[in-house]
Amino acid sequence: MQPRFLQIRQGVLSKNDELAKGLRQNFEQAKCFTLNLVSSPGAGKTTFLQVTLRMLRERGYRVAALVGDLATDHDAQRLAASGAPVRQIETAGNCHLEAHMVQTHLDAAGWSLNDFDFLFIENVGNLVCPSSYDLGEALRVVMLSTTEGEDKPQKYPPMFDSSDVCVITKIDIAEAVGFDREAAHASIQSVHPNIPVYEVSAKTGQGMDAWLDALITYREQAIGG
Amino acid sequence: MQPRFLQIRQGVLSKNDELAKGLRQNFEQAKCFTLNLVSSPGAGKTTFLQVTLRMLRERGYRVAALVGDLATDHDAQRLAASGAPVRQIETAGNCHLEAHMVQTHLDAAGWSLNDFDFLFIENVGNLVCPSSYDLGEALRVVMLSTTEGEDKPQKYPPMFDSSDVCVITKIDIAEAVGFDREAAHASIQSVHPNIPVYEVSAKTGQGMDAWLDALITYREQAIGG
Repeated sequence: MQPRFLQIRQGVLSKNDELAKGLRQNFEQAKCFTLNLVSSPGAGKTTFLQVTLRMLRERGYRVAALVGDLATDHDAQRLAASGAPVRQIETAGNCHLEAHMVQTHLDAAGWSLNDFDFLFIENVGNLVCPSSYDLGEALRVVMLSTTEGEDKPQKYPPMFDSSDVCVITKIDIAEAVGFDREAAHASIQSVHPNIPVYEVSAKTGQGMDAWLDALITYREQAIGG
Repeated sequence: MQPRFLQIRQGVLSKNDELAKGLRQNFEQAKCFTLNLVSSPGAGKTTFLQVTLRMLRERGYRVAALVGDLATDHDAQRLAASGAPVRQIETAGNCHLEAHMVQTHLDAAGWSLNDFDFLFIENVGNLVCPSSYDLGEALRVVMLSTTEGEDKPQKYPPMFDSSDVCVITKIDIAEAVGFDREAAHASIQSVHPNIPVYEVSAKTGQGMDAWLDALITYREQAIGG
C-alpha cells in the first residue's frame, strides 16, 4: 500500500507545483511581492505579521494578507485591526496550505493583485508539512521563537532548508527563557548555510526596522521599485 | 485526484488502526501503561518526560521511552540520562508516528513489555497530523506551553479533542510571557469539556508531584497495581 500512497501523494504535489507556478507568474506580473510565513504553532507569526503590516503601511506600501488555520478566524480578526485587507483560509483540518486554496481565496476576495506591493500568506502552524507545498511565493520565511529550543532546525530540516530567510521571534524574552543564541544560529546554519537570519521582538519593536529594510530590499531586488 | 488520495489515506489509517489494536492488547496484557505525548515543536515534551521518568524511577516504577523525530537522536540522548531504556525513532521526514513504527522499534529494541510499568511514546512535534494515528496508547497527553498563545486548542481542535489529558507546560515563565490562564482553560474546555488539565514546570518542579500522583492513579484504574 505504501508505494501506491506515495505515488498518489507525488501526483498531488506535482499538481500543486503546476498551480503554484501559475500563481508565481501572476504575482510577478502584478509586482506583488508574496511571502509564505511558516513556523510551529505559537511562534508568533500573527503578532509579527500584525506589526509588519502596520509598519509597511506607515512607509506607504500597499499590503494584504491571507491567513491559514485549521479552524477559527481569530488571526484574520487580529490582522484586520492593522487596516489592511485580510482574508482567513480555514483548512477544515488540513495541516498545511496548498496553492489551490490560495487561488480560490484570492478569487473569492475579488482583490486585484496590482493593488498590492506585498501579499503575506500566513501558513498553518506546523514545522513539517507546509515545507512540501509551494504557494507561488517569492520568499519563504521560517520563524523560530526563543522559547522553542535551539535545535529545532536540526530536528525539522526540510522546513529550514526550503526557506529563504529565518526570523527569530520573541527576542525580548530570550533571557527569561534561557535562550542560547549561539546554539540557535549554529543549528540554523548547519541545516541551511548562509541563510539570512533576523532577530526581532514584535512586542517591543526590537529588530523590526532592520527586518523592514531587508524586506523592502528583497522586493526591490526581485521585482523592481 | 483528491477522492482517490483520500481513499488511499483512509486505507492507510484503517491499517494503522488494526496494528494499534494489536499493540494495545499487548500493552494491556503486559500491564505496561502506555502514553502518547503530543504537542507543538518546542512545547517542552522532552524536558517534561525527562523529569517524569526520573520521578517515576524514584518511586520504584520501571519505565521506558520511545521518542520520535524527523531527524537527529538529540531527544533520546537527553532522555537516556534518566537511566531509563530509551530508543529514538527517526521518521525520515514523516510528520507523525504510526503504529508500525512503534511495533518495529519495540521489536528491534528487544524489550519485554512485562519489564515496564510505564512506556512513554514522545510523538513528533506537530499539533495536527499525529491526532489521526492511534499508537495503541492507554492515555494520549496533549501539551500546551504558556508561550504558545491561549487559543491554540480552538485553532487545533482535533488534537485537543482526541486527547485524554492536557498538560500546560512552562508555568514558571507564565508571568514573563503574559500567559492568560483563564483564557487558556476556557479554550481547552470549549474544545474538550471536562478534560483533566495539569499545570507544570518541569524546570522548577512546580505541579510535577500532582501530575505523578494522577499518572499513577490512571495506571491503577486502567490495569491494576
